[in-house]
Amino acid sequence: MSIRIPRGTQDILPGEIEKWHFIEEKAREICKKFHYREIRTPIFEHTELFLRSVGDTTDIVQKEMYTFEDRGERSLTLRPEGTAAVVRSYVENKMYGDPNQPVKLYYMGPMFRYERPQSGRYRQFVQFGVEAIGSNDPAIDAEVIAVAMSLYKELGLKKLKLIINSLGDRESRAAHREALVNHFKPSIGDFCSDCQNRLEKNPMRILDCKLDREHELMKTAPSIIDYLNEDSKKYFKKVQQYLTDLGIEFEVDSNLVRGLDYYNHTAFEIMSEAEGFGAITTLCGGGRYNGLTEELGGPEAPGIGFAMSIERFIAALDAEQITLPIKEEIDCYLVSLGEEAKDYTVGLLQKLRLSGFSAERDYLDRKIKAQFKAADRLNAKYVAILGEDELKENKINLKSMETGEQSEIALDSFIEKFSELNK
Amino acid sequence: MSIRIPRGTQDILPGEIEKWHFIEEKAREICKKFHYREIRTPIFEHTELFLRSVGDTTDIVQKEMYTFEDRGERSLTLRPEGTAAVVRSYVENKMYGDPNQPVKLYYMGPMFRYERPQSGRYRQFVQFGVEAIGSNDPAIDAEVIAVAMSLYKELGLKKLKLIINSLGDRESRAAHREALVNHFKPSIGDFCSDCQNRLEKNPMRILDCKLDREHELMKTAPSIIDYLNEDSKKYFKKVQQYLTDLGIEFEVDSNLVRGLDYYNHTAFEIMSEAEGFGAITTLCGGGRYNGLTEELGGPEAPGIGFAMSIERFIAALDAEQITLPIKEEIDCYLVSLGEEAKDYTVGLLQKLRLSGFSAERDYLDRKIKAQFKAADRLNAKYVAILGEDELKENKINLKSMETGEQSEIALDSFIEKFSELNK
Repeated sequence: MSIRIPRGTQDILPGEIEKWHFIEEKAREICKKFHYREIRTPIFEHTELFLRSVGDTTDIVQKEMYTFEDRGERSLTLRPEGTAAVVRSYVENKMYGDPNQPVKLYYMGPMFRYERPQSGRYRQFVQFGVEAIGSNDPAIDAEVIAVAMSLYKELGLKKLKLIINSLGDRESRAAHREALVNHFKPSIGDFCSDCQNRLEKNPMRILDCKLDREHELMKTAPSIIDYLNEDSKKYFKKVQQYLTDLGIEFEVDSNLVRGLDYYNHTAFEIMSEAEGFGAITTLCGGGRYNGLTEELGGPEAPGIGFAMSIERFIAALDAEQITLPIKEEIDCYLVSLGEEAKDYTVGLLQKLRLSGFSAERDYLDRKIKAQFKAADRLNAKYVAILGEDELKENKINLKSMETGEQSEIALDSFIEKFSELNK
Repeated sequence: MSIRIPRGTQDILPGEIEKWHFIEEKAREICKKFHYREIRTPIFEHTELFLRSVGDTTDIVQKEMYTFEDRGERSLTLRPEGTAAVVRSYVENKMYGDPNQPVKLYYMGPMFRYERPQSGRYRQFVQFGVEAIGSNDPAIDAEVIAVAMSLYKELGLKKLKLIINSLGDRESRAAHREALVNHFKPSIGDFCSDCQNRLEKNPMRILDCKLDREHELMKTAPSIIDYLNEDSKKYFKKVQQYLTDLGIEFEVDSNLVRGLDYYNHTAFEIMSEAEGFGAITTLCGGGRYNGLTEELGGPEAPGIGFAMSIERFIAALDAEQITLPIKEEIDCYLVSLGEEAKDYTVGLLQKLRLSGFSAERDYLDRKIKAQFKAADRLNAKYVAILGEDELKENKINLKSMETGEQSEIALDSFIEKFSELNK
């Protein structure tokens, strides 16, 4: 009996992987231009990290984490998102002491959430994200958004919608929080048990509830925008001005509440508006998380970041019918005939490869015709043919698959000649 | 209180990550030349997969796996190695039906073993590996070894030792197995309980035991080399001939027994002989695993592969004092003075980046002098200076940090001029 892949996960195979390479390389290039540097944190962290950062009233922590004990009885959790670990590392490695501030980091790797698998949603999915920690300049908020938008646009996405909101500073959030409690408290009995729980702990998350979405009180709930104090308003205005300076279109949506506990000030989401993209339209989400470094035991350091799913990125490209310029070919296929010639190609192949060419030969003892077919399938630019006679006479035939042109080359100068031809 | 990274894992930070990028890019380049294509399998698999492939008498399965139940009560295990999942995927995705045979794959990613952390050994570590499935040509054994050796050599490692062995085909292994049982059985009471267990299940693994290494019977144990049948001998000879053709030096070591159950025929290890490299000298290990596809529910398909740890690769580079040619710099740093000029650089920075340059500005409201220092630290090739006066007069100063040369450029043609300068 065969063993299947775990539910909600996928293999990325040749044929599909090239898209991933293309996107990842572009993401790395853009990070280089914007001067974000990669950090890699472990696949799992102490569970406590996510309780403290993501927040213990969130769906992620309550329902979706892969949590287990290791053989030393530590509670570990497969990371459900990237920010907590990056901030943990920032604190642990004392990056606040680095002379280069803000610390600008990016990450790219698998995340894990135990959710019901559906189109575009996996239990293991890959996120690319950036974090800029150590600056309170609204220009860095705009920059972070620009990284995401630039990447999407660079790959050709057009049907994008950026929405932004401000969740305000601590004071503004406290005022809004109080208003929310007063608003929902009298009728909280109508709401789901999760919401009843959230009322005292984190009432803003009630606005995010999928079950109670249609309740009358949801529509009339106090908006954070009306509770922003002067500083928060000024900050938000500046972010908008900079986005305009960067030529990035956006809409302010006062209903945008990010699902994690640690956000304040700027929050944003980028959605695909492509037709037929499916129910989950969010491609990327992010926001500011001043206070998180302290929550995780470090000194005060304001931060902002985003995370985007590569799976949804690819789905968005598909929805807009964008074909990435991916070319698959090899430089040379060695066709051989007869035991000795076949053996000879082993060394010749290695020489071609060490000279920088992608090259292949037959490993199945196939007949000449089948070897040519294989060369065709691999999209070989050249085929070199070596038979017993050629080997004896120290020569090899080279055929350009593009022009059909054939030439006879002295075997011992083949690499040299081939290199000249392909300079 | 701060939360620390889980024991036995590490963060890879900017400053160190560049080495990883360099090695990974080289690995990808070499895979392209040798025509191996990437596959990505999930971080976890059904536990059953490893029981069946790695083998339930191995240390990995018995002591080192991160095994847990998900919320659907499936037993999952963080992958301790890469081959099992690749072969699972090969079978599940019916790659045996692909017209391009053998199927040549590579992978690169984290693996997990609960071992005592020590220098060069982590609980989460990264492996790069290749698998060639579907050919019984000894030339592919040599090719697989050549991939690993070429990568090490390309990065400058010189103090390498390749040892190879043959574990023979099924018939040879059975004969050897019987000889081992007869050899150890009379005195098995002297051996550790693991070995007693192994005697009937997998006696070859007794040879690998660390506890009983010094026992007299270990030295006189029958060697697999003496039990190879004609086919196995011929195969092994051919592999050696091809390695010689490829210019790859090796030693035959009949004591080489790979720790996993699924190997047969060719087995190999590459070690670092650099002084001070430490106790664990193995950089890379691999071998042939004909029969594994059937074990995992697929049709017969002979396979061979290797896996190498990137952490040990880096340690070997360090031990040979090899510095990788890594250059860290940015193209332009924008220094600004005054609120308006500062705001202006937000848009200018974006234009530089979208034109393909890596560029940076200040996000901490620093004074001119501190901004220049920041440019210096980032190894900026150019610094562009914009003050209130320059902004009014539509100009900007550009200074080459290499030559010290300064020039004044019209602000609205800055991007154009900068692009010309850096063509």
